[in-house]
Amino acid sequence: MAKKSLIARYIPISRWAPHYTGANLMDDSVAALIVAIMLIPQSLGLALVAGLPPETGLYASIFGLAVYSVFGTSNTLSVAPVAVISLMTAAALAKLPIEDPAEILNAAFVLALLSGIGLFFLGLFRLGFMANFLSHPVISAFVTASALIIGMSQLKHLFGIESEGHNLIGLGLSLLESIHQTNLIALGLGIVSIGFILWCKARMEWLLVKIGLPSYFAKVVSRTGPVFIVIASSLVAYIWRLDLYGLQLLGEIPSGIPKFKAPLIDAELFSSLIGSAALIAIIGFVESISVAQTMAAKRRERIDLDQELVGLGSANIVTSFFGGFPVSGGFSRSVVNFDAGAATPAAGLITAILVTVVASFFTPLLFWLPKVSLAAIILVAVVPLIDFSMLRRSWQYSKADFTAVFFTLTLTLLVGVEFGIAAGVLASVLIHLYKTSKPHVAVVGRVAGSEHFRNVKRHNVETFENLLSIRIDESLYFANTRYLEELIFKLVSRQPKVEHVILMFTAVNAVDMSALETLTKINDTLSELGISLHLSEVKGPIMDRLQPTDFIKYLSGNCYLSQNRAVEALKDTEMPLSSLQ
Amino acid sequence: MAKKSLIARYIPISRWAPHYTGANLMDDSVAALIVAIMLIPQSLGLALVAGLPPETGLYASIFGLAVYSVFGTSNTLSVAPVAVISLMTAAALAKLPIEDPAEILNAAFVLALLSGIGLFFLGLFRLGFMANFLSHPVISAFVTASALIIGMSQLKHLFGIESEGHNLIGLGLSLLESIHQTNLIALGLGIVSIGFILWCKARMEWLLVKIGLPSYFAKVVSRTGPVFIVIASSLVAYIWRLDLYGLQLLGEIPSGIPKFKAPLIDAELFSSLIGSAALIAIIGFVESISVAQTMAAKRRERIDLDQELVGLGSANIVTSFFGGFPVSGGFSRSVVNFDAGAATPAAGLITAILVTVVASFFTPLLFWLPKVSLAAIILVAVVPLIDFSMLRRSWQYSKADFTAVFFTLTLTLLVGVEFGIAAGVLASVLIHLYKTSKPHVAVVGRVAGSEHFRNVKRHNVETFENLLSIRIDESLYFANTRYLEELIFKLVSRQPKVEHVILMFTAVNAVDMSALETLTKINDTLSELGISLHLSEVKGPIMDRLQPTDFIKYLSGNCYLSQNRAVEALKDTEMPLSSLQ
Repeated sequence: MAKKSLIARYIPISRWAPHYTGANLMDDSVAALIVAIMLIPQSLGLALVAGLPPETGLYASIFGLAVYSVFGTSNTLSVAPVAVISLMTAAALAKLPIEDPAEILNAAFVLALLSGIGLFFLGLFRLGFMANFLSHPVISAFVTASALIIGMSQLKHLFGIESEGHNLIGLGLSLLESIHQTNLIALGLGIVSIGFILWCKARMEWLLVKIGLPSYFAKVVSRTGPVFIVIASSLVAYIWRLDLYGLQLLGEIPSGIPKFKAPLIDAELFSSLIGSAALIAIIGFVESISVAQTMAAKRRERIDLDQELVGLGSANIVTSFFGGFPVSGGFSRSVVNFDAGAATPAAGLITAILVTVVASFFTPLLFWLPKVSLAAIILVAVVPLIDFSMLRRSWQYSKADFTAVFFTLTLTLLVGVEFGIAAGVLASVLIHLYKTSKPHVAVVGRVAGSEHFRNVKRHNVETFENLLSIRIDESLYFANTRYLEELIFKLVSRQPKVEHVILMFTAVNAVDMSALETLTKINDTLSELGISLHLSEVKGPIMDRLQPTDFIKYLSGNCYLSQNRAVEALKDTEMPLSSLQ
Repeated sequence: MAKKSLIARYIPISRWAPHYTGANLMDDSVAALIVAIMLIPQSLGLALVAGLPPETGLYASIFGLAVYSVFGTSNTLSVAPVAVISLMTAAALAKLPIEDPAEILNAAFVLALLSGIGLFFLGLFRLGFMANFLSHPVISAFVTASALIIGMSQLKHLFGIESEGHNLIGLGLSLLESIHQTNLIALGLGIVSIGFILWCKARMEWLLVKIGLPSYFAKVVSRTGPVFIVIASSLVAYIWRLDLYGLQLLGEIPSGIPKFKAPLIDAELFSSLIGSAALIAIIGFVESISVAQTMAAKRRERIDLDQELVGLGSANIVTSFFGGFPVSGGFSRSVVNFDAGAATPAAGLITAILVTVVASFFTPLLFWLPKVSLAAIILVAVVPLIDFSMLRRSWQYSKADFTAVFFTLTLTLLVGVEFGIAAGVLASVLIHLYKTSKPHVAVVGRVAGSEHFRNVKRHNVETFENLLSIRIDESLYFANTRYLEELIFKLVSRQPKVEHVILMFTAVNAVDMSALETLTKINDTLSELGISLHLSEVKGPIMDRLQPTDFIKYLSGNCYLSQNRAVEALKDTEMPLSSLQ
């Protein structure tokens, strides 16, 4: 029983495969075909984004999809190369002091292996919550900046020139240097390709429906624009021998899929890549589960975050042994899979088989594919990721979030992807700690004739000269205890006749050890001043935890179940003070 | 007016000096004398802890005290060398690839300069809250581990041998290697010194009171044990020429105080020391303000955290130009100053003058002072800092805090001070984020016949098949939005007839941009499932912020002022479901 449930938990395919039906196979096959048509040119282009030979994109797709379908919990997530992760791979490899293409390729495998192992163990130890430390605005800013850099990096193919760099400035300067060598054939082909793909996306579906095709069929065909471009541009290049006019072609690609081969790893490579691998793992995971959760929720399905880590980790580990670079769940591809009706993870497996067929038999045809066509496909794919509205929206909603967005965006663009995302995470954590380090605290008084207590600054309430009632609207933890201590003594020093301080714990959901020590210190110091400290309305779980501590043992005052009981017990005059401050 | 208040704010001496009275001078002078007697041997010993010539301790004391008295806001804080900071200085200097004593000395000045500049600018930009990110248990563990390492590092003087190392293992192994060379005179003198100082602390006050001395005088005299030891051991060493028997003496110390001289700094030294300087700044600041706040509260005085940064920063900057190493506000010394009745920061200034007198005229006498006597004084001073009870107390109170304590303690002891404190800060921040990333969330139902809503798991309440009411007991921010999203859809998938989800915001004190986006996504996805999303009891400030957003504009349901109104408006049956789950 225990064994069976362990298998069911860690190998989700064992849950759905026994119930797999012919209808499922039909649905999955259709979805798989559509995804494969979209994926093949994309994965070739993303391999170029990563600075690797194009075939590695195919290998990464095959093993990413196949392994995830065994270990993943999402029915529709499509795990293969994605734009942001490919860019991060390029940035990580560019840092290495190596030039030999074979060594660079090996480093890409090591990167996939390390990030896969990281994801796998986070999943085994159920540490999926780590992904929560990336805030949405930071991710959004990072994706926007990455898409801009990818777009910029593709311009060299569009102009048929060389350029280098891993941030906007480097890429821009490099492009300007050689823009005078622009190959007009590449540029023309690129512009026509982009125009055609955009037209397909925007108008083809409408047109096909208009000429009488079924709407579903029209939708599918309208997505095949990139494949038309691949075929048409290859034909054009072949017929007119455009390579003789300087057009860069994809060139020779080996047939078949590589044999199992362990990446070569030494201590130096390990320490150079471990940081990048960690960032790739966390960004890949966050992207994947955002997509997977959205799609699962739409069908009232559930995904298991920790098992997703195991699934993504396994996909990357296996990929690294078969000539692939880091993979992740891509947004647009997964949405296509979802819309096309993928019913189970088998759709991914079938896509993998289709890509294998292409890698085995059709690579000679890819020889004539112009690089500029792939660049056009990638450009059109990444532009929708660029979303500057986050700057405006966060500015309007919260300056704190805006700060994190601004840092992430500018540092990613100007310095690079790794620095940018690290700065973004740090900024959002610091900002969060800062915000909660100054909790909202109100001096409260009683609404006359009632048992309700309200902020003396906002309401006309009765207060007593010998009482100071303070309501704390935040959990107490290390980052805000000093503020609390300072505030209480500031309030005490302003109210010279005070004999009792009552802390109202209505909104206190936690009290950590730092807060406990601070409360103890406040109690001691108030005692020396002849002032008693009382608590009111402490929640059950907090009281359970405080009860056995010395703080409660030596508390100079009492714990009251309600603020009103505290005030009734402690007030020494019926004369309310003025509540005006 | 603006100019005047700026001076008053940044140069606090301008606030109190004009009102300085003869009575103040009397009080301050007595306190200054007592502190000076305690400080002089301590600062010589702490210079040795820092691995620097003894006179640097005197210079650091003089300029630390004098400058702080101008810029500081605490009447009683005594800013001079302190044990933990001296140890951190030693650790920072030991990392440098330099051997020349003059270069090491210069590096110590640079360390003081950099940490001073850091503190100063944190103060100018009012960033004092950064100190809040160090939790009490982490500081306590760090101080305990540091005191152990300092104690261990002093054993070499006690045994009269050589040893090196900056963690327990290194120091221990190094001691064991040369323990066979123990100098028995040093050991004997050390043990007698320790015994005498301990006796003074424990019994002398009692004895003096018993033989009829006034209690105040007895208290003062009982604190002069270290000075007796300094005088007596110097005499013994001089009379019997114990240096000829291998006893290590303090040796020649230059007279007077050094001329103003800028520390020499280059890019390499800067980048080697900036991290250590940052840690020294933050630890020094946290120690100082903990002491200053406690003492200020006892007299109902206030200190200004940001001006404290300016004060401590200035003290370190000036010290670095006059041959001193990093300084901070010391706990025991400040308490002595406080108890002895220091009325204003002038007490510190007078102490500085007294130390200057000693540095100018009495250094020839210090030639004969055995190093083991200083080691004995430091040992007795650091032992009270060792407090392992935090391990037990945090274990009992909160496993999360225990984890942070355990990491800090073991890593500081086994690896070193800088690694230990960095790990401690990281651990406490991660643990805090983890705890708030899984907020307490309750499905609530109505207590029959009332308007109160309670957790369905704990209370017998009425619920409705078409309603799902969820109370969230935490502010919503990036670290817990994913959990919330997952939970809502899990609950929805369990209750198939649900038409309305009501989120009860009673305890939600903040909604950041990530949470806003998640709420928007939840609203969209629920809409696609035909389920409306409603909010109830949203606090005023949160509602103000949400009102202009697209989330509220496209919210499929409504915002209700009370949960009861929401339920009354949305329920479709009077038949309560069973509340048993």
